[in-house]
Amino acid sequence: MAKQPFIPPFGKEVKLSDYSTREAEPAGRDKGKKEIEELRLELEELHELIVADGRFPILVLLQAPDAGGKDGTIRSVFDEVDPLGVNSVGFKAPNDEELAHDYLWRIHRQMPGKGHVTIFNRSHYEDVLVVRVRNLAPKERWKKRYDHINNFERMLTDEGMVIIKFFLHISKDEQRERLQERIDNPKKQWKFRAGDLEDRALWEDYQAAYEEMLERCNTEYAPWHIIPADRNWYRDLMVGRIIRDRLNELGLRYPPPEPGVAGRTVV
Amino acid sequence: MAKQPFIPPFGKEVKLSDYSTREAEPAGRDKGKKEIEELRLELEELHELIVADGRFPILVLLQAPDAGGKDGTIRSVFDEVDPLGVNSVGFKAPNDEELAHDYLWRIHRQMPGKGHVTIFNRSHYEDVLVVRVRNLAPKERWKKRYDHINNFERMLTDEGMVIIKFFLHISKDEQRERLQERIDNPKKQWKFRAGDLEDRALWEDYQAAYEEMLERCNTEYAPWHIIPADRNWYRDLMVGRIIRDRLNELGLRYPPPEPGVAGRTVV
Repeated sequence: MAKQPFIPPFGKEVKLSDYSTREAEPAGRDKGKKEIEELRLELEELHELIVADGRFPILVLLQAPDAGGKDGTIRSVFDEVDPLGVNSVGFKAPNDEELAHDYLWRIHRQMPGKGHVTIFNRSHYEDVLVVRVRNLAPKERWKKRYDHINNFERMLTDEGMVIIKFFLHISKDEQRERLQERIDNPKKQWKFRAGDLEDRALWEDYQAAYEEMLERCNTEYAPWHIIPADRNWYRDLMVGRIIRDRLNELGLRYPPPEPGVAGRTVV
Repeated sequence: MAKQPFIPPFGKEVKLSDYSTREAEPAGRDKGKKEIEELRLELEELHELIVADGRFPILVLLQAPDAGGKDGTIRSVFDEVDPLGVNSVGFKAPNDEELAHDYLWRIHRQMPGKGHVTIFNRSHYEDVLVVRVRNLAPKERWKKRYDHINNFERMLTDEGMVIIKFFLHISKDEQRERLQERIDNPKKQWKFRAGDLEDRALWEDYQAAYEEMLERCNTEYAPWHIIPADRNWYRDLMVGRIIRDRLNELGLRYPPPEPGVAGRTVV
């Protein structure tokens, strides 16, 4: 796998304060927006090829702080892709049946089959994020999960899955602005939950939990990408490029016709 | 976990020829059959307690050569248990949707939740048995699965599952007799498949695959039990005892009543 930008060095400590939340070239906005248009069409074609090729299950996984832009990224990047062929799954607080099973049970069920693309809007990583910060399970329990998750993702990739993981990295100031906008804008008020402010008060705890996740579950077979996400256009551009480049590495191809089909005349 | 009989030493090579396929005390048949009757009633009560206790998912897993007695064991040992509370799942050749996913996908979906007992009649171990012997996947692929399976079972047990695994060990002669009986007995002919003879011709290959499975996937958290299975009564007795003893180690208890319930008079 070619080294990608935004992948932290493997096996090294991750300090989010070392990673920018802003675009590298502020002047590039108009050019960037134009490139996103082209990227969407490229991804539409690549998606058709994934379906035809039929060999790879593709998982795109997004984690971010509240108001980090997960929904917006998915809407923008997959704007042109056939919605019938892409499945987006949001993981909320587990229900009673899910809680009766191990935390990977509901995740595994939703995994894509060969030739399918699934987008995880939150994921099994919540079980080392909110579960940790909010003390929903004892440390004895969640501290074993980093290894579980690496082993799970290794099995999935050994068996052929392509896993592309994004952490949308926003600043604390940017989150404040976005939450305020949700409160002030009547069309966005429905997105605001009182719990968002409780989680915001735990910002530092969440950053520490993200850092451990980005450090311990960053692997050659399923690396994390830390995306500067204060600016939507830049975030979408980087996510789109990374997905396109990763899919282009797979050697996707339209399968050959069945024997005797090529050249045949339909009468 | 207390050391159980029939568990091979951890991390050591397993040679099936070192393990008897026969009962230890041939004279004990009548006594044994009586004990099985009592065991069934004990297991019925233990099962009620598992449901009431509601903390543990219980998985009983059976692997065996053809005609090894998996169905018979389940019928006998769980004879008295409330059939509504026990789920038996047989894994046959995977269908198209299952084949589009990793081999643990269909397995994970069927795992018991807390307070439930599930019996696996065959399992994910087929993916290092028939898949290996019949070359259904390249060695590069299946050789990684021993580690996958250990990691998977570790995650499940870390999250609270109790896994009890049995290999029903029969001799090649005993299999011949049982397959012949299936051919000769009109009421058993339906159980006979032509593939059984093909698999029998591969007996040595299967024994080698069982040995590697019993060696590499025999762990403190999910040990294998090698059960002498040429005699049904002895097999059932050993399996029943092991399940009972393991469940008795869990400290199962009826949950206390809600506050204010005890001593209250219903008017």
